[in-house]
Amino acid sequence: MALPRYAYLGPAGTFTEAALRQVVGPDACVELPQADVSSAIEAVRTGEADYAVVAIESTVEGGVTATLDSLAVGEPLVLLREVLVPVQFTLAAAPGVTPHDVHRISAHPHAWVQCRRWLARHLPGVVHVPATSNTAPAALIAERLAAGEDPLTLGFDAALVPPPAVETYGLTPLAEHVGDNPDAQTRFVVVGHPGEVPAPTGADKTTLVVHLPDNEAGALLAMLEQFATRGVNLSRIESRPIGDALGRYSFSIDAEGHIADERVGEAFMGLHRRCPYVRFLGSYPRADAQQTEVHVGTSDHDFVTARAWLDAIRGGAAT
Amino acid sequence: MALPRYAYLGPAGTFTEAALRQVVGPDACVELPQADVSSAIEAVRTGEADYAVVAIESTVEGGVTATLDSLAVGEPLVLLREVLVPVQFTLAAAPGVTPHDVHRISAHPHAWVQCRRWLARHLPGVVHVPATSNTAPAALIAERLAAGEDPLTLGFDAALVPPPAVETYGLTPLAEHVGDNPDAQTRFVVVGHPGEVPAPTGADKTTLVVHLPDNEAGALLAMLEQFATRGVNLSRIESRPIGDALGRYSFSIDAEGHIADERVGEAFMGLHRRCPYVRFLGSYPRADAQQTEVHVGTSDHDFVTARAWLDAIRGGAAT
Amino acid sequence: MALPRYAYLGPAGTFTEAALRQVVGPDACVELPQADVSSAIEAVRTGEADYAVVAIESTVEGGVTATLDSLAVGEPLVLLREVLVPVQFTLAAAPGVTPHDVHRISAHPHAWVQCRRWLARHLPGVVHVPATSNTAPAALIAERLAAGEDPLTLGFDAALVPPPAVETYGLTPLAEHVGDNPDAQTRFVVVGHPGEVPAPTGADKTTLVVHLPDNEAGALLAMLEQFATRGVNLSRIESRPIGDALGRYSFSIDAEGHIADERVGEAFMGLHRRCPYVRFLGSYPRADAQQTEVHVGTSDHDFVTARAWLDAIRGGAAT
Amino acid sequence: MALPRYAYLGPAGTFTEAALRQVVGPDACVELPQADVSSAIEAVRTGEADYAVVAIESTVEGGVTATLDSLAVGEPLVLLREVLVPVQFTLAAAPGVTPHDVHRISAHPHAWVQCRRWLARHLPGVVHVPATSNTAPAALIAERLAAGEDPLTLGFDAALVPPPAVETYGLTPLAEHVGDNPDAQTRFVVVGHPGEVPAPTGADKTTLVVHLPDNEAGALLAMLEQFATRGVNLSRIESRPIGDALGRYSFSIDAEGHIADERVGEAFMGLHRRCPYVRFLGSYPRADAQQTEVHVGTSDHDFVTARAWLDAIRGGAAT
Repeated sequence: MALPRYAYLGPAGTFTEAALRQVVGPDACVELPQADVSSAIEAVRTGEADYAVVAIESTVEGGVTATLDSLAVGEPLVLLREVLVPVQFTLAAAPGVTPHDVHRISAHPHAWVQCRRWLARHLPGVVHVPATSNTAPAALIAERLAAGEDPLTLGFDAALVPPPAVETYGLTPLAEHVGDNPDAQTRFVVVGHPGEVPAPTGADKTTLVVHLPDNEAGALLAMLEQFATRGVNLSRIESRPIGDALGRYSFSIDAEGHIADERVGEAFMGLHRRCPYVRFLGSYPRADAQQTEVHVGTSDHDFVTARAWLDAIRGGAAT
Repeated sequence: MALPRYAYLGPAGTFTEAALRQVVGPDACVELPQADVSSAIEAVRTGEADYAVVAIESTVEGGVTATLDSLAVGEPLVLLREVLVPVQFTLAAAPGVTPHDVHRISAHPHAWVQCRRWLARHLPGVVHVPATSNTAPAALIAERLAAGEDPLTLGFDAALVPPPAVETYGLTPLAEHVGDNPDAQTRFVVVGHPGEVPAPTGADKTTLVVHLPDNEAGALLAMLEQFATRGVNLSRIESRPIGDALGRYSFSIDAEGHIADERVGEAFMGLHRRCPYVRFLGSYPRADAQQTEVHVGTSDHDFVTARAWLDAIRGGAAT
Repeated sequence: MALPRYAYLGPAGTFTEAALRQVVGPDACVELPQADVSSAIEAVRTGEADYAVVAIESTVEGGVTATLDSLAVGEPLVLLREVLVPVQFTLAAAPGVTPHDVHRISAHPHAWVQCRRWLARHLPGVVHVPATSNTAPAALIAERLAAGEDPLTLGFDAALVPPPAVETYGLTPLAEHVGDNPDAQTRFVVVGHPGEVPAPTGADKTTLVVHLPDNEAGALLAMLEQFATRGVNLSRIESRPIGDALGRYSFSIDAEGHIADERVGEAFMGLHRRCPYVRFLGSYPRADAQQTEVHVGTSDHDFVTARAWLDAIRGGAAT
Repeated sequence: MALPRYAYLGPAGTFTEAALRQVVGPDACVELPQADVSSAIEAVRTGEADYAVVAIESTVEGGVTATLDSLAVGEPLVLLREVLVPVQFTLAAAPGVTPHDVHRISAHPHAWVQCRRWLARHLPGVVHVPATSNTAPAALIAERLAAGEDPLTLGFDAALVPPPAVETYGLTPLAEHVGDNPDAQTRFVVVGHPGEVPAPTGADKTTLVVHLPDNEAGALLAMLEQFATRGVNLSRIESRPIGDALGRYSFSIDAEGHIADERVGEAFMGLHRRCPYVRFLGSYPRADAQQTEVHVGTSDHDFVTARAWLDAIRGGAAT
């Protein structure tokens, strides 16, 4: 049987690759590294790949806006799973380089910003040499070493790289966990074709895109009440201009719970009835496995009981 | 077959009797006049009567609060029908009396207040002789006449009475439509035992009682959002202290639509899930036959379509 | 100096008189008993009285609807104070009558209903002789006694009366607290002309009338959000048909707090901006003296702080 | 007098430079090109620059998330102005190259995606050579030409570049407007230090960051009601994880109107009272100059009138 094909933001050593590793082992898939998020998603649409792994909440390698916009329109795709990747950086160099040798550091600007305080404290006065990606400086060092040349001729002495890139490119770590925010993490999702929805686990998330019927101050509220009335929490909401007219917005939303949950289902029906456009982008287990908090009166049992009660009074029973 | 028995606020000639006449002819029922609204309702509970006809929005003969409180607790009863009765008054007297003879008018205080402007214009200086009910002065005149005595010895020359009381008690009308508000009307309901709910007509009303879970400013809003989210208009809402604790309230509500309507049913399920007490008091045709305004996305068809769409996406269909 | 004149639902011995007694002593006012609530309120408008004492939440002697409707339109009046009167009944008779003599009881139908369970337990089989008011049977007995006649010729042996009527009319109590609900109480208000608003006490209530801009399901919600957004609880809400058009409603509302409170003031401004009609009916101390619960962020201090912060950022300050 | 210093995402020829050109002429400022958005914003905080020009709604060159996160915390900065830049691409090459010569195109992956349909139609089979930025291939061609070398040795025959880059780097345009969405545009903002807020124009936007008090389904609604109750429309809302705890969110919001508007001011006070964190990020003219739609009852005049009315009723006036 053919191995599943995964498109992702490559090359080897990126945070996205780390996300991919949480999803599937290197021997259990065909890896299709892509130049950017949109290309990874498009590869699934064209059939070139079965799945894409892309960032959906992160600044460290792009994604987010590109991911949301790519999913909101075009041939329908769904999210099948999410994974969280700690955003850590390692200061690494070619073998033989010591911290005292480090005066010029190559780093993607995003990485540089996230390590700025550590650098100011431990390597004051060090010079930033911009790189085009998080793994580019590591790849350059590896190339030089493979060619038997001196990496220092590259114009930098060390690099800020994702931890997996250290081993991938044969570097020596000089300092680990040099990011200023030790809790930083990025959320990635696995994108695939619609089909069977992953079964509910009690700790699920549901992603959707919805357009408002008009631009009134109350229209956004009315849309959100479809969730609140059924006790459904939202964990992410982002407006995006629709583009076809001034002042019209599309909302990308993560709701807590699974489409199979009664409360989520009824909220979706409410959206379908009142909003001009609703796209279901999938229900999948939460990466943090945190159980959904079920508010009073909003469990599946409450819905089933309420339905039975309604049937009874419709049939003439006394209350 | 036994005729149905109707309890109502008697005696003959009251506005309530006029309401009863809209419901059933005198030969098709057993009439059980009662001294007040609570007694009429209680007569149904004890089995003495099959139905009660009582005022639910009116000041002209009481009702309203007494009706609402009697229905809110105790053995469950339901509203089966509503009728509207124009609240008109006729100035009437014993045969032979002319308008020029009228210096003292007997009237229930409610009636007096509602005819005050007409009286000031047409009979300035006339004296008010309070009566204990709208029909009491007519009955007194009839008694005197039947006994061959002079009604003027009663201490008044004429009376403000409901129009049907003129003929019932053999009076002569001196002036009709003497009420100051020509559009005044009172709403009556037919109360009976739970059983088959009257079929939807497209112009229905649903009455219910509901308690709030707590006393927060937001609890009332959250309750009302159960209606608004499904596009259900309310035509009446009244809070009543529950009585078991300070600051706790019961709400008596008329919603537009029928319990068989999808939007009303879903709203009821929402109330059942979130509120500690919900009593369905019936769905019945509106007396004014005004079709329910169905807001965008809240027709039965919209609900059915939304349910089909939900089933499809739960099954893995693309959107 | 002239004594203040109080109109109220008379005669002596009514619950309304008991309410009046909480407000002012008999030697400190001129009492103007009226036949009904509307007349009492109108007496203030005509200048015949300075104040009226009327029931605003009660079934025991009428009021409520009549009170609300009378205040909602016409020359503006305001509520200055509220008092709570326990609704208790005493079984009383002419001196010399004992409980064993009691086979027929005169009672206003409202009173009869409220004592039904006690009567069934203690005087099973006793007959109800309807009275036209709570105090009427007591007055009839007193008349007979004053005339030297036998009260038993009235057709009843005892009466259910408000406790104060026992002494007023020289009766003998046979049993006290015969009402089925020991906690029953009625809320009365003192109505007067607009002028200085009673000072805030921290335990205040504010009454108002408001019309909705339209008949949408959302219009009621939008009106109530004016309160909820500022953390103002409502303790009473009642819809009343406006009467000028089908489906238009007026709302009579009691809000917790004083018009001088920042949160109440801002809510009133919101109503004034959005609703076609708002009538302020007064702020006055709560009869139960229960301090208003102030939700997080809605104290006067919070408003003042927020205003200062707004002024700062409008002036260019950093936040 | 020293010229104002502007930090922006460089180098010459970027869309951000086009945005900068709308703000200030090249001779009226000192240009400080930066490697990324965060660096540009940080340059203002450190004092290196007076202003930064950064993308706030765009996918074409990054920005957005980085911009929002950089502004949400740290030393307060404000938005002073927004500008819209059409996102157009030109297919350009070294002088002498004709469309028939083009088999390999260098383009930033974002650019490639946005021109895909045009390319499929007009240059089927053309090969994508990824570039590290929108202007990088143009700069490379210019370098070769300046050095007297053949640009075709770069490995590509033409490039997709922002229109201004064509002239900047001395290229020849082969085809203009090759982007698939002719209406695509990106929103940029000018960031500076707090100080005098730009005067209201009637077509303004206000940006803020706010945290919710808790994670309830109703908390987001309650926050948004602070805007809706005052009739303030939102044109952008984006949630961002706060990072200090699971499930806590920060919201970045654009509201229509100016902080000097009464309705916006009152909404801000409401947020200040109820939410744990509110940061005002500036009021500034809308780039599209579209007048703010003022809903019924929410003009400054309505607020002033309501305040006068409230003062009157607080003083005892009749309503």
